[in-house]
Amino acid sequence: MGEVAAVVDGKNQKRFETADDQIAQALQSCALFEGMGPEAMNTLVRGASLRDVPKGGILFLQDDESYEVYVVVSGRIRLYRMSPDGAEKTLAVHGDYEVFGDLAAIDGLARSAVAESMTDSAVVEIQRDAFITCLQGSWDLSERFMKKLARMLRETDESLDLLAFASAKARVSSTLARNSDQCGRVMGLTHRDIAAMASTSRETVSRVIGDLVDSGLVAVDDEGYSIIDMEGLMELSSL
Amino acid sequence: MGEVAAVVDGKNQKRFETADDQIAQALQSCALFEGMGPEAMNTLVRGASLRDVPKGGILFLQDDESYEVYVVVSGRIRLYRMSPDGAEKTLAVHGDYEVFGDLAAIDGLARSAVAESMTDSAVVEIQRDAFITCLQGSWDLSERFMKKLARMLRETDESLDLLAFASAKARVSSTLARNSDQCGRVMGLTHRDIAAMASTSRETVSRVIGDLVDSGLVAVDDEGYSIIDMEGLMELSSL
Repeated sequence: MGEVAAVVDGKNQKRFETADDQIAQALQSCALFEGMGPEAMNTLVRGASLRDVPKGGILFLQDDESYEVYVVVSGRIRLYRMSPDGAEKTLAVHGDYEVFGDLAAIDGLARSAVAESMTDSAVVEIQRDAFITCLQGSWDLSERFMKKLARMLRETDESLDLLAFASAKARVSSTLARNSDQCGRVMGLTHRDIAAMASTSRETVSRVIGDLVDSGLVAVDDEGYSIIDMEGLMELSSL
Repeated sequence: MGEVAAVVDGKNQKRFETADDQIAQALQSCALFEGMGPEAMNTLVRGASLRDVPKGGILFLQDDESYEVYVVVSGRIRLYRMSPDGAEKTLAVHGDYEVFGDLAAIDGLARSAVAESMTDSAVVEIQRDAFITCLQGSWDLSERFMKKLARMLRETDESLDLLAFASAKARVSSTLARNSDQCGRVMGLTHRDIAAMASTSRETVSRVIGDLVDSGLVAVDDEGYSIIDMEGLMELSSL
């Protein structure tokens, strides 16, 4: 704020653009803040600053009590959770004019993820108060924000579905491996039997076995299944 | 609306209570709508009706294009998704004065889950327009609703973490089982080795092995591990 940056416009004439102009431009490019009136935009800009973040830089850590909202101006920011097993689980990678950090701003609870810059990046950092004031003053913005939260929820539910299916695939693979004889033959088991042993549905067993046949791990004949690639199947079983 | 129901008040005198009164009372008992002004409450009540739902009754199916918001008055409503493997996955069970169905109301997209009554239940069904009008007219309600969406998001993220940990436990168990000799001994593997084979962290391997020892499946001595209960360990491997 008050800083100036030299830019070259379309006619190759140098002019000066303030940091506030850059912030306003970034916010206007952002789907969430699109079409905001000048008053609300001023409130946001007054509560915002431009920040450069080097590659590997951290904007916030999981469990931090910080509540700013961010808009990516350039570069990419990765959000990830440390899962209980100590592994990093990427939730999202945000690029140009995407918004993140808004959950803590709305509920005032600690950060649910780490925000780390994957490249040299620039972000607009908006203070919580300014963000909340704008939400309060604009139903359009509030509604867009509610829709954004709803979309995030639907996407997370779909990730849960995918994980559940991946684990069903592992269970079916492991059931086949465990029930094979020394020659890798699995005899006398129906899809229903396998479904019961793998705690899944008959439909899933059909789909998984179709997948396994397509990828050359298992073959089907009149008498049952032959495991073609036991190592590959064991690999899948442990996913 | 316009229906009347006989009730007995504290003094054992019969008086008549309209369905609208019952609806207003239910909404006022609901954390989301708490403290709403009379005008907003009237808007909600005018756009709402009381519905009895028998045990097993369906309020909406996954992918339905319906947008009402519900408040439980009595009984229990289960929300579940049909996962791609055909299994039902319960997202939530809602009891007295809890709200559900609000996601479709806000984003106008198809239902993400089935709502089925687990008991004979009664619900207030609020039309989408009335709900949106109230949100629009009350910042307090909007803010509470955003916080509710944020809480749902945080809870779903935590479910993902739990699933990820459960699957790490399965991978470690399976790694131990695969690397055991005929006597069930696992020799010469460090936690770091096991972590690499199970695609998890050393910390998780320590935690999982601790769990396995506590539940009597595995024993530890100076030379490595002994699998005490191979069947139990294989069972875990297939989760």
